[in-house]
Amino acid sequence: MTYKTTRKVRIGNIEVGGDSRKTVQTMWKKSLDLFSGEDLEEILNLEDVGCDILRFSVPNFRTAGILAEIKRNINMPLVADIHFDYKIALECIKNGIDKIRINPGNIGDEWKVKEVLQAAADKNIPIRIGINTGSLDKTFNDISDKAEAMLKSAESEINILEKYNFTNALFSLKSSDIESTLRANREFSRRWDYPLHLGVTEAGPLTAGLVKSSIAISQMLNQGIGDTIRVSLTDKPIQEVIAGREILRACGMYANGVDIVSCPRCGRSTFDTHEFISSVYDELYRVKKNLKVAVMGCIVNGPGEASDADIGITGAGTKVVIFKHGKIYRKVDENKGREEFLKVLEEFVR
Amino acid sequence: MTYKTTRKVRIGNIEVGGDSRKTVQTMWKKSLDLFSGEDLEEILNLEDVGCDILRFSVPNFRTAGILAEIKRNINMPLVADIHFDYKIALECIKNGIDKIRINPGNIGDEWKVKEVLQAAADKNIPIRIGINTGSLDKTFNDISDKAEAMLKSAESEINILEKYNFTNALFSLKSSDIESTLRANREFSRRWDYPLHLGVTEAGPLTAGLVKSSIAISQMLNQGIGDTIRVSLTDKPIQEVIAGREILRACGMYANGVDIVSCPRCGRSTFDTHEFISSVYDELYRVKKNLKVAVMGCIVNGPGEASDADIGITGAGTKVVIFKHGKIYRKVDENKGREEFLKVLEEFVR
Repeated sequence: MTYKTTRKVRIGNIEVGGDSRKTVQTMWKKSLDLFSGEDLEEILNLEDVGCDILRFSVPNFRTAGILAEIKRNINMPLVADIHFDYKIALECIKNGIDKIRINPGNIGDEWKVKEVLQAAADKNIPIRIGINTGSLDKTFNDISDKAEAMLKSAESEINILEKYNFTNALFSLKSSDIESTLRANREFSRRWDYPLHLGVTEAGPLTAGLVKSSIAISQMLNQGIGDTIRVSLTDKPIQEVIAGREILRACGMYANGVDIVSCPRCGRSTFDTHEFISSVYDELYRVKKNLKVAVMGCIVNGPGEASDADIGITGAGTKVVIFKHGKIYRKVDENKGREEFLKVLEEFVR
Repeated sequence: MTYKTTRKVRIGNIEVGGDSRKTVQTMWKKSLDLFSGEDLEEILNLEDVGCDILRFSVPNFRTAGILAEIKRNINMPLVADIHFDYKIALECIKNGIDKIRINPGNIGDEWKVKEVLQAAADKNIPIRIGINTGSLDKTFNDISDKAEAMLKSAESEINILEKYNFTNALFSLKSSDIESTLRANREFSRRWDYPLHLGVTEAGPLTAGLVKSSIAISQMLNQGIGDTIRVSLTDKPIQEVIAGREILRACGMYANGVDIVSCPRCGRSTFDTHEFISSVYDELYRVKKNLKVAVMGCIVNGPGEASDADIGITGAGTKVVIFKHGKIYRKVDENKGREEFLKVLEEFVR
C-alpha cells in the first residue's frame, strides 16, 4: 500500500480516520435565518436515513447564534462552514460546535488562522481544511494543473498547522473534474496521514452529479483512500445521504439498511414501481437492518428477483403480490399495496 | 488486453461494436396501448438529449402494430423487447423493427428461437440475447453463482446461434448486484467477441440505481469492455439517457454536449441553483456542442468556477451575474436570469 493509514480525529461522538467506519456527510442547503420546526424534522430524518455529520454554512454572527440553538436539539455532530471572517469561526467554537471547516483560500492572514487553531485546540475540536479548485488562494490560482494547485495549497496549510502544533485536522481536495480530484487525493495520501474527506465539488444536478461522484469516490475508496464522504449534488440533502450510503455499500463498506432492487418499468406492467418506491422512500431508508427489498413491475423478472429478496412486491394485473423470503405472502389490490408492504417491512424491522 | 475486440453489428443507421463510438440506450416505460402525441414529443426529446437506440416492450400483437406506426415517425433505431411468445418477434421483424431482444429464459423451445433467427437473418437485423439473473432458464437457475449461471446461459445460446450460422448478435449479462455483473461480463469478453450491451438490472430508484450503474459500467468501460450501455433506473427515461452520457463522459468516451458544474447550494445564497437548473434542464442537455456550464450559488466558488466555464451564472444578492468565458457579461434581476442565460446559450449553440 502506497497510501498512508490516516490518524484518527473525533467529531462529537463520531470517530473519523484510521480503521474507523467510513462516515457519510451532507450540508444544510437553506438559510439558517429561515430555520423552522419543519427543518428540524428534516434534519432528524436525515440522521435517521444515515447521515453521520451535518454541516451548515455560517455567513454571519446572527446565523452562528441560530446554529447554537439548533445544536441543542440534535445528537449528530454539527460542523460550521466558515468563509472570509475568522471571527465567526471563533464564535461557533465558543458556542460548542463539533468541527469547523475553513477554506484557506479566503480566511486571510496567518494570524487569523492561528487564532482559530488556538480556539479549536482549547475545545479539542477538529478543523477541516477544505480546498476547492473554484476558490484557491491567489498564490495557487495561477498553477494550471488543478491537482498540483490543490496540493500546494494543502502543503502551505499543513506548514501553518504544524508550526502551531495543531494536528487535529482533516483535509479535503475537491475539484469539479474527476481526474484532478483523483490525482490530488492520491498524492495527498502518499504524503500525509491527515484523514481525508472525499468529494467532487460542484458535481452538478442529481443525475450528472451522482455519476461523477460515484465514479470518483468509489475509485478512491477501493484504493484505500478516504475516511468520510460527502456527495455534493444540486439537489436535496437526503439524496446526498442516500448516495453516500450507496457508494459505501458498493465498496463493501456499508452493511446496514435496505438494498433496493427495483424494476425500471416497461410497457408490460401497469404497476408503477417508480411511484410505489416514492411512496415508501423514507420508510425504506430509515430501516437499520440489512434487508434486500425487490420492487418489481411484472412476472418477467419479478418472482425471480423476489425469491432472492427478504421482501418483494410485484405487479400482477390489477393486484400486487407481496413476497417474504421468496414465498408468496399476500395478494392484494394495488391500492392496498403500500399499506400491506409497510406492515411486512415493520415485521422485519422488529 | 485479455478482452476480445468485438465484431460490429448494425442497428438501423447505427453501428455497435469494435471501434464504433459507444452508444446510449433507454427503454420506453409506458404501455404502447396508451401511446399519444405527447409521448412522440417525449421520444423526439430523448433523441435530442442523446439517446441513440430506444427499446419497447411488446407484450402482444396489438402493441406490435402500434410500434410499427410509431416507427414511421422516428429516425433513431428502435428495438422490440420480446418475452414468452416468439410469434410477436416475428411480427415485429416483419414490421421493420431495427433489432430484437429476446430473453433465452422464457422464449421456449429451440425451434422457436430458430424461427426468429431465420426471420432476422432474412431482414439482416441483429438480435440481442438479454440474460438477466432474475429470469434465467430453469436449467441454469440452480447454479448458485450468478455470474456462472449467466455465462452458462450465454454459452448455451451461442451454441444455438452458431448451429444456425447466425452471427449478427449482441449479448447482455445483467445482475442486480455489481460484483456478479462485473465478473460475468469480464469472463464473457475473454471468451467471445459478440458486442456487449452493459447494464446493471433492476438497479433501483434514481439515486441508488445511479450509484450502482455508474460504478459497474465505468469499471467495465475503463477496462475495454462494452459497446452500448443502458442505465436501468426506476425513474424517467430521460434520466437514463443523461446518466448514460455522463458515464461515457467520465470514461472519456463522450465529448458532445454540456458538462454542468453546479453548486449544491448552502445557506449562504438565495439563488436557488437546483430550481434554476430544473428550469433549463432539457435546453442544456439538447446542446450538441462540448460546453462547460457553471451554475453557482454565490461568490465563494462562483466566479472561480465560472472563469473556467464557457457560460457561467452566479447568484449575487437579489441579482444574478452571467459570465461568458470568465468575463462578466450581464448582471440582471434573478427573475430575468433564465431568459438571459438561454440567450447566451443560444449564441454558443449557433
